Amino acid sequence: MTTLNHYHYKRLQEFCSSVFVKAGVEKEQADIVAASLVQADLRGVDSHGVVRTAIYLKRVEQKMINPKAKIRIEKEDESTALIDGCNHFGAVVGDKALKLAMKKAKANGVGMVGVKNSNHFGTGAFYALRGLKEDLVTIVMSNASQTMPPTGGIKPFIGTNPLAVGIPCGECEPFLLDMATSVVARGKIIVAAQKGEAIPHGWAIDKNGKSTTNAEEALKGSVLPLGGPKGYGISMFIDIFSGVLTGAGFGKYVNNMYENWKAPQNVGHFFITIDVNKFMDIKTFKHRMDLYIRDIKTEPKAEDVEEIFIPGEMESRRSEQRKKNGINLSQNVQRELTNIGMKYGVSLKDALMLNHNTEGKGV
Amino acid sequence: MTTLNHYHYKRLQEFCSSVFVKAGVEKEQADIVAASLVQADLRGVDSHGVVRTAIYLKRVEQKMINPKAKIRIEKEDESTALIDGCNHFGAVVGDKALKLAMKKAKANGVGMVGVKNSNHFGTGAFYALRGLKEDLVTIVMSNASQTMPPTGGIKPFIGTNPLAVGIPCGECEPFLLDMATSVVARGKIIVAAQKGEAIPHGWAIDKNGKSTTNAEEALKGSVLPLGGPKGYGISMFIDIFSGVLTGAGFGKYVNNMYENWKAPQNVGHFFITIDVNKFMDIKTFKHRMDLYIRDIKTEPKAEDVEEIFIPGEMESRRSEQRKKNGINLSQNVQRELTNIGMKYGVSLKDALMLNHNTEGKGV
Repeated sequence: MTTLNHYHYKRLQEFCSSVFVKAGVEKEQADIVAASLVQADLRGVDSHGVVRTAIYLKRVEQKMINPKAKIRIEKEDESTALIDGCNHFGAVVGDKALKLAMKKAKANGVGMVGVKNSNHFGTGAFYALRGLKEDLVTIVMSNASQTMPPTGGIKPFIGTNPLAVGIPCGECEPFLLDMATSVVARGKIIVAAQKGEAIPHGWAIDKNGKSTTNAEEALKGSVLPLGGPKGYGISMFIDIFSGVLTGAGFGKYVNNMYENWKAPQNVGHFFITIDVNKFMDIKTFKHRMDLYIRDIKTEPKAEDVEEIFIPGEMESRRSEQRKKNGINLSQNVQRELTNIGMKYGVSLKDALMLNHNTEGKGV
Repeated sequence: MTTLNHYHYKRLQEFCSSVFVKAGVEKEQADIVAASLVQADLRGVDSHGVVRTAIYLKRVEQKMINPKAKIRIEKEDESTALIDGCNHFGAVVGDKALKLAMKKAKANGVGMVGVKNSNHFGTGAFYALRGLKEDLVTIVMSNASQTMPPTGGIKPFIGTNPLAVGIPCGECEPFLLDMATSVVARGKIIVAAQKGEAIPHGWAIDKNGKSTTNAEEALKGSVLPLGGPKGYGISMFIDIFSGVLTGAGFGKYVNNMYENWKAPQNVGHFFITIDVNKFMDIKTFKHRMDLYIRDIKTEPKAEDVEEIFIPGEMESRRSEQRKKNGINLSQNVQRELTNIGMKYGVSLKDALMLNHNTEGKGV
């Protein structure tokens, strides 16, 4: 039975890409967006997975994303560049910015590329992972529409602006931190509300700015930044790098992807890439990283803990499992994607795992 | 009466500098270390203030810091450099690294300078504030000796590795985030233990890795990273940038300043400086920063909140107040500094505010 809702990642990616192509996106660019979504599902970040296909398509259909745009490099120097995304897909703009940043790091040791006029770009890990393949240290930031109050405020003002950092290792799994700057994902509060469960104090405030354990009240209020004023500060500097410094929106000038149908999002991103060799031979560095990670993983563990994990390690393992066993989609997501497939003449069923036990073996 | 424990910041700085000079430090370098300590007191970060004079001196006396060292640039390219601090004072090494990073940013848009073989460098704000004076965006990181467990661990493994970010503004107070990666400063737990008070769950674990509200037990255990696995990840990447990438110590190879008298600390730092003009005209950028900050400060406030603050704003106001009214030192710190002064032939009394109400006026 499990095979009936398990999808093969490559064919699921083909499905999404085909739908985007039918909606007017160039094949190569559709592939990038689809890869970004499916990779999130593989890594267990389902909130950023193929569940977003519908909203991405709707924004194309409503002309809130322009898949025909010609992305421009507006300003460029040896180690720096500013890119105008011209309202293309975030993942396509991000892909171009990352490639430019990587090229600069390889040539000059450092690449810093800011991006304006972009859209939701998927997970930061999507970019940091590609930096890792090139042995580069990669920092990725993006701003997002308003969900969290400043410390002392009661209304959403800053986004849960994500920060991702990828650092290559030798034999160990690379370090890959990818985090939102909120205490918890808003999705967790939605799930609690659906189940009628309470949430812990510290996750959110109600619409009057009071701490609440009522998930329904929390959804009418704001999710809180991690660590109070510290998370507020981190979220703010990500907003400044991604938005203020690039010419993108920031604070209330970043439009909500789900709610605003009058204007593009104007999201901003910021990519930093570093060639390790400018500081230390990469081989030596990787040995040192392996030593560091092995040191941590052999630390004494708390009673109920089986293993100490490095950031990104759990997601990497989950990705390997899901490549083998398929990506499990909820009934809702399957229904939504099936409808999209019907509209654009692409069959979701073709992406189903044919045989849960054998199909993954060759992957 | 208050004047008897209030010290004039300039004369307190002269006192500290004079003591360091008598202990064998060159005047110019002694001034840097003293400025770093007194600035922390001015900003209200008393834990990093002149209270550290005693331990710094002891490490010089015990040959754990070498104030005669010649700091070396070990590796250098247009935008990057690696500095060997040769075990000089952290503030002196950090000063040199920051200056080099700022020079590179002005010439090429970006400066990245890693540092190894250094010592405790004071607050990150000390460096970020100087970047601000030059209109540069500045990121400062340092690792520190072990105080926090990895997520799932029970023993201190990583430091409360600080991160500071300075971003220039126009008319508004600049953005200046300077934070440790722990939930709270260990100092707060020490204070609770002294008063016999309980601490909230989530601040610390006992020596068996269990959450505790007992401050005494917490001090035998570990302080926790902010936001659980997120703070653990942030602290780790700061350790990697500052330690693994530079050739400094990292994790358990950073020695404790108070406990290890057999080897230098081998702390590492990492400085990133950015010229805004490579992305956007600095004047336009400052206008956008002012808009951003005014937007935040006029957000609706929670009931018990008088004002929404930007990171660094409270510290800046406190600094202005203390410049006027003097720095209030505890009896313990006064006693310690008096003894140091007697040993080196420098009078602490000369640094007292003569008249609390009038002396600050001209400052």
